[in-house]
Amino acid sequence: MTKIYFEDIAVGDTTTSHSRTVTKEEIIDFARKYDPQSFHIDEEAAKKSIYGGLIASGWHTASNLMRLLVDNATNNRAGLGSPGFDDLRWVRPVRPGDSLRYESTVVETRKSASRPEMGIVRADVNLLNQNDEIVLSLKSIGMVKTRPI
Amino acid sequence: MTKIYFEDIAVGDTTTSHSRTVTKEEIIDFARKYDPQSFHIDEEAAKKSIYGGLIASGWHTASNLMRLLVDNATNNRAGLGSPGFDDLRWVRPVRPGDSLRYESTVVETRKSASRPEMGIVRADVNLLNQNDEIVLSLKSIGMVKTRPI
Repeated sequence: MTKIYFEDIAVGDTTTSHSRTVTKEEIIDFARKYDPQSFHIDEEAAKKSIYGGLIASGWHTASNLMRLLVDNATNNRAGLGSPGFDDLRWVRPVRPGDSLRYESTVVETRKSASRPEMGIVRADVNLLNQNDEIVLSLKSIGMVKTRPI
Repeated sequence: MTKIYFEDIAVGDTTTSHSRTVTKEEIIDFARKYDPQSFHIDEEAAKKSIYGGLIASGWHTASNLMRLLVDNATNNRAGLGSPGFDDLRWVRPVRPGDSLRYESTVVETRKSASRPEMGIVRADVNLLNQNDEIVLSLKSIGMVKTRPI
């Protein structure tokens, strides 16, 4: 597969991923390990909570976004990783059976001043459910190789 | 246990958690599900990568921070959840056997204008390894109930 280099990326470029369905078993398995709050791990307690039923840990939802990014973009790009991201927001709960996809839009590209072999790509990323409602948003920061001469 | 309400929290308050050791098995298990890049799931490939060995997915490290927060703080607070967080940075790789703890410092407290029953607490959170090196940092945003009258 042809790799996508920094020069191939422009402000305004948009990407839509495939969808990934979140199961009850995954929600509970993740939360038992990393976020054992009752509304993430106990269906009965969750019914009595303000959420009215089991919801996914926000970190599970973010991890599902990462899986979609790896499957749809990361492995196609001449990427050099990411230093982090800004402004993550959990906009709406994710429930068992929800089907998630992301839409991303490049908002900034700039060559690195200190490292001419790479550039920085910033994108606004929204994770949506099957009803086209945003469930999570963040501003991503990616380091991408410049095209070899 | 006495719950901690918004009025009990002040700018400058610091918290240090207990430590949590990250195993190779957990690193690989998490990454196979949510971040299947070779340097997270394949020891041999990781040795040949720029990292020189297996490293944890940044999202796994963030999830370990969440587990420390739940065990040390979330369940003691009269918390109403979080809308998200700002400025997450993966500062340094996490490797098998690393032992992680967080240190957090409250940087802002304000009552909600629209919801008098709660306040917003912002904190700077650093996740450190056994060598006292920061591996991840973020700016947390928490919603906390005001004390019942």
